[in-house]
Amino acid sequence: MKNFITIEGTEGVGKSTQVRFLQEYCKKNGIDAVFTREPGGSKVAEKIREIILDKNNGEMSDVCEAFLYAAARAQHLKDIVIPALNEGKIVFCDRYIDSSYAYQGVGRGLGLDFVKKLNDLAIGDYMPQYTVFLDLPPEQAFKRKGGADENDRLEMSGNEFFQKVYDGYKQTIQNDKSRFIVVSPTGTKFETHDKIVAALKEKGIF
Amino acid sequence: MKNFITIEGTEGVGKSTQVRFLQEYCKKNGIDAVFTREPGGSKVAEKIREIILDKNNGEMSDVCEAFLYAAARAQHLKDIVIPALNEGKIVFCDRYIDSSYAYQGVGRGLGLDFVKKLNDLAIGDYMPQYTVFLDLPPEQAFKRKGGADENDRLEMSGNEFFQKVYDGYKQTIQNDKSRFIVVSPTGTKFETHDKIVAALKEKGIF
Repeated sequence: MKNFITIEGTEGVGKSTQVRFLQEYCKKNGIDAVFTREPGGSKVAEKIREIILDKNNGEMSDVCEAFLYAAARAQHLKDIVIPALNEGKIVFCDRYIDSSYAYQGVGRGLGLDFVKKLNDLAIGDYMPQYTVFLDLPPEQAFKRKGGADENDRLEMSGNEFFQKVYDGYKQTIQNDKSRFIVVSPTGTKFETHDKIVAALKEKGIF
Repeated sequence: MKNFITIEGTEGVGKSTQVRFLQEYCKKNGIDAVFTREPGGSKVAEKIREIILDKNNGEMSDVCEAFLYAAARAQHLKDIVIPALNEGKIVFCDRYIDSSYAYQGVGRGLGLDFVKKLNDLAIGDYMPQYTVFLDLPPEQAFKRKGGADENDRLEMSGNEFFQKVYDGYKQTIQNDKSRFIVVSPTGTKFETHDKIVAALKEKGIF
């Protein structure tokens, strides 16, 4: 969907920083953009996310989790993304369908085909026009941020899980090459920002 | 799935009474059966149901609602239905996939095809072996129970909605005739019970 940009990456690649930098860039240059993340201020979607993240729901099945993410996605699209796109704004969304491919599809092992079928029903035509992927193997990413966060259930799932997630991203990129802007965040955060801006200019977004 | 029986019908057809009669019948005759209803005692599924039924979530999209029902269904299957079937029990479930066909597919207008694709992903092979449908047009059903309940959001949706739901059931039955046991509840509740028991005997369930 034109002007719908998503940003993806595994933990520790500096995604939040780059999203903030993009937001500042848009502000400084008078670009009419909306920055959001799922569930991102959509009340119903946030309630769904609470169930997903609740540590007391340990018996939740992987299938149920994938359906809940898709439910929240459908609602967030309707409440936030679609209205902004209809007003002619550029929409940047921090994580979207590719996170489901990587985390549920490959990380949890539900399969890319299952996740595709499920999400096609949730998002209809609203595939991102471009997706920025911050590409750093999990081993390097954790080293950079000084080890895993012991308070984060996902980060404690271990390196094997994150390697799967990373592989999931890589497979997804292979399946849809023209959509992805793959950026290596191995330089400084400012260099990474410049690379992203240059790519978005080249694609005609900025 | 062998020994998985669901019970369906529009509001006011006497479904709860018939489920209770079936439960008493099984108890009296020493039949090892589990009676459940979605979300039916599955903690995660119940939390999902709370979101669906919360009157403050009026902006929930029909697509989001359908995903939430499917999420709760997947979890309830895993927590309640599948373990009981694996123990060799007969499982009776008050409402299941056909309610989604009727209410979301036709009532809300998402389409039977959409609901089928979505639910196939949620339930896998766990289609009911037989489904008892209490067949009474909504006009007669409401007359029988003395009018719609003003405190029930769904019942206040009006007759047009319930006519659609009824039509949805009828279409679903057309698409899968051999699965359905269609019972007309126009006699006394005892006569209806006898009809259901006779049909389940004929199918080899009792």
